[in-house]
Amino acid sequence: MHSQAKYLSGDKDSIKEFIDKFDVFLFDCDGVLWSGDNLFEGTVETLELLRSRGKQIVFVTNNSTKSRSDYKKKLTDMGIPATVDEVFGSSYSAAIYISRILELPADKRTVYVLGERGIETELDSENIPHIGGTDPSLNRIISSEDYASIASGSSLDPSVGVVLCGLDFHLNYLKLCLAYHYLQRGAVFLATNIDTTLPSAGKLFAGAGACHAPLVAMLGGTKPASLGKPSQAMMEAIEGKFKFERSKACMIGDRLDTDIRFGIDGELGGTLCVLTGVTKSPDDWKDGRTVPSEYVNKLGDLMGAA
Amino acid sequence: MHSQAKYLSGDKDSIKEFIDKFDVFLFDCDGVLWSGDNLFEGTVETLELLRSRGKQIVFVTNNSTKSRSDYKKKLTDMGIPATVDEVFGSSYSAAIYISRILELPADKRTVYVLGERGIETELDSENIPHIGGTDPSLNRIISSEDYASIASGSSLDPSVGVVLCGLDFHLNYLKLCLAYHYLQRGAVFLATNIDTTLPSAGKLFAGAGACHAPLVAMLGGTKPASLGKPSQAMMEAIEGKFKFERSKACMIGDRLDTDIRFGIDGELGGTLCVLTGVTKSPDDWKDGRTVPSEYVNKLGDLMGAA
Repeated sequence: MHSQAKYLSGDKDSIKEFIDKFDVFLFDCDGVLWSGDNLFEGTVETLELLRSRGKQIVFVTNNSTKSRSDYKKKLTDMGIPATVDEVFGSSYSAAIYISRILELPADKRTVYVLGERGIETELDSENIPHIGGTDPSLNRIISSEDYASIASGSSLDPSVGVVLCGLDFHLNYLKLCLAYHYLQRGAVFLATNIDTTLPSAGKLFAGAGACHAPLVAMLGGTKPASLGKPSQAMMEAIEGKFKFERSKACMIGDRLDTDIRFGIDGELGGTLCVLTGVTKSPDDWKDGRTVPSEYVNKLGDLMGAA
Repeated sequence: MHSQAKYLSGDKDSIKEFIDKFDVFLFDCDGVLWSGDNLFEGTVETLELLRSRGKQIVFVTNNSTKSRSDYKKKLTDMGIPATVDEVFGSSYSAAIYISRILELPADKRTVYVLGERGIETELDSENIPHIGGTDPSLNRIISSEDYASIASGSSLDPSVGVVLCGLDFHLNYLKLCLAYHYLQRGAVFLATNIDTTLPSAGKLFAGAGACHAPLVAMLGGTKPASLGKPSQAMMEAIEGKFKFERSKACMIGDRLDTDIRFGIDGELGGTLCVLTGVTKSPDDWKDGRTVPSEYVNKLGDLMGAA
């Protein structure tokens, strides 16, 4: 870890040197490329500059509600050219982990989803059976029959071997209780990501980590394995797909505890912090716990090398 | 704290001595008097025996979904004679705390409720204004307008000075985000109780502590002040109402971490554990952390002194 972050904004030579060092740039999106619906000035040009110099771009997002193809659409709708293959989301990361790393018994392959469509789409892409999720029959208040049938197990699917939690705008008491009972019966506890908050409209709202917090509380503190930043399970999946040298890769993000931590723990060649999102100033890393190797006021400052 | 719990079942002399020691018996209900819809044999007779000997009975429940009068009805429906004044619930405890202990500024007296009707009824009984709770307009999915109006504060009530969380069967993402924003604006964070689970149909379901866990996660670990067992705020409220000598009072319950802890921390004269609920055997307290002064297999064993 670097003890001090190098400030690049306005320093043309340092920016050039910075860009030249890397073959691959992993981008966090919200807070880096845009905030909410507001695309930052210089985002498109900076990505274009990097592409024109032959850099591989990967959009690494913990947003579990969107599949890669949904996210590609979001990028292009925002005016950012992108391909589906450049997108690496936490739902995709989780689906890959379940299908290729977890060795589930043949009769325990079903995933109970606490989350949105993006998770289901990515599970489908890996042919993983799933229940829960957006099933409209679960959008209701728990009934006395539910208590009895959950307790007896008669309404539980015996093939569930994983509970996968993401951000769930449709979170409710019934879904949480179902997830808890699957976990009590031995299901593996996974999360697309553990961010407790999610920025929107300039403020924070509940993130995936808040949605599964009731389960952690009920389990007496047992936390899910996370497949999103800063979990290195996600880094391994990205590396497996894009085959790069870690020393030639740089993570760009606005959050110290997810993005910058992700790059540091992954021993990437660099970690660039932008001050357009959660992190507001170098003071935020003065405790020395998670210090980026470089920082800029905003991503567009990299255009200083154009 | 007692280093060893005395076993009373079948020991007529010890039971008599035990009963004679106390003027007041504080009863936990579920797991002690009944389990789910199943009234334990001997419950009614034991309460009758205690009353016939002039003992004050108090039903102390962390169930926040019911008001005292709802709970009195539940007791009588179960076949247990009781008066409203004998019931002391965590919602009532919270209402008393807010109206009589918390010194809220005149323009911050409104309580945002994350919970059920029982909380609202008890707040009403103390003339405390409240919003949220069972408001049917909040039983919906968060919209993009909600993000904007919550972030700007335009949909937030500026008079909210307290967020009070209980068990909420109607928990949803929108309600959690509203609660979070009130807390971010300085509202006092209170909980009727912090039990993470709730027994039903012989298994565990999400308790109040699970319902507010997303807020604790979003706040980076800040927990609410609890007004239910084992919080001594509840003991003080009970003592304020019933005016008893603590040395002449005994707490009877099935949970070590709530009921027995409540009695020990309150320096009551005794704590009696029954083995008909969460605690299954003396092995459960062998770590020495929370040891009751006495225990019986079931409450009805106290009839051995009849």
